[in-house]
Amino acid sequence: MATPVGERGGARRNRSAELLEAAIHLFHEKGYASASIEDVAAVIGVRKGSVYHYIDSKEDLLARIFEQSDRQSFALMEEIGALELPALERLRVFARTWTLWYLANIERAAVYLRDWNHLTGARRERVRMVRREYLQRVAAMIEAVKEEGDAAPGLETRYAAFFLFSVINGLVSWYRRDGAGSAEQIAEAYAEMIVATVAAGARSAGE
Amino acid sequence: MATPVGERGGARRNRSAELLEAAIHLFHEKGYASASIEDVAAVIGVRKGSVYHYIDSKEDLLARIFEQSDRQSFALMEEIGALELPALERLRVFARTWTLWYLANIERAAVYLRDWNHLTGARRERVRMVRREYLQRVAAMIEAVKEEGDAAPGLETRYAAFFLFSVINGLVSWYRRDGAGSAEQIAEAYAEMIVATVAAGARSAGE
Repeated sequence: MATPVGERGGARRNRSAELLEAAIHLFHEKGYASASIEDVAAVIGVRKGSVYHYIDSKEDLLARIFEQSDRQSFALMEEIGALELPALERLRVFARTWTLWYLANIERAAVYLRDWNHLTGARRERVRMVRREYLQRVAAMIEAVKEEGDAAPGLETRYAAFFLFSVINGLVSWYRRDGAGSAEQIAEAYAEMIVATVAAGARSAGE
Repeated sequence: MATPVGERGGARRNRSAELLEAAIHLFHEKGYASASIEDVAAVIGVRKGSVYHYIDSKEDLLARIFEQSDRQSFALMEEIGALELPALERLRVFARTWTLWYLANIERAAVYLRDWNHLTGARRERVRMVRREYLQRVAAMIEAVKEEGDAAPGLETRYAAFFLFSVINGLVSWYRRDGAGSAEQIAEAYAEMIVATVAAGARSAGE
């Protein structure tokens, strides 16, 4: 987390990353509507005016949190997509890694899932486009499992993709950093359950 | 949906059910904060004052939507819990039936999942208690599968229960009544995936 430091203390470095971290924590705790640019400035120990070197408005700050989150997510997907593994194992690694990333960034994930509706115009449109992109990428991972013959017969890619997103997005509703179970244990259990969904999710009722 | 009728038209019947339906649709479309008791009264064609025969406040109206939803949900759970079936099949029936109920009541579900934070005091505390009750009942269903030896080895009941709730609660984020796939198809696919999660959700990585 950002530590308040004097505006002239230390290097006069680019504060952009700190700014986003501070905003995530504030938006998460106070809610986007109640948090102000002044609040964010206070957390990183600069004057309100300095914040405007980096962003144009509170909405701009929110949009940057979204863009940064998507860059991190997509980078993670690229990395895992490049692994030379059977598609089902790649899906397992993805499920585990993405769950871990969510748990490590649970406040960011909560803001991401809750506050998209404060974005307007082109920023809102971008969110819609990115959402389709996520869905397509996960659908492609599931399709790859099908092509390799490891998917449950009759599995509907679209429903399985929604299923996977619902499960991971649902983490923000129940996960507590101080709760039972380490992030690693949860990620492992989730990866197993997601793999089971895709690999054996459409057994016939009579089986 | 409630049809506006004159206050003296038809029988001077108890309008409580209509009132809740109208409130669900208004809260869903306008948001709880923006909707007013006047709006609700207008939809069912009565004067604002008449609404107060049934409820004390807008928050009371919201609380009644929650109570009614929980009564319906718990009745459904009781009914399915009484079925003489193997526990895994009972879970399948539950997953299918609950998904269908969500899809048929998607606006109600959306309000339920989004607007609980407008409830205060004892009403908020009730929501917390009911949430624990849901979790315990679903956990008990999963435990029964374990006891009958049909669960995946190593399955964590708590995570599996959160998984199941996340999946079903996630429906409100993507389901559109006019979208592809009938409610029956979706419910069938979801039931299969949920059963696969519990029955084979913890296969070892080396399998």
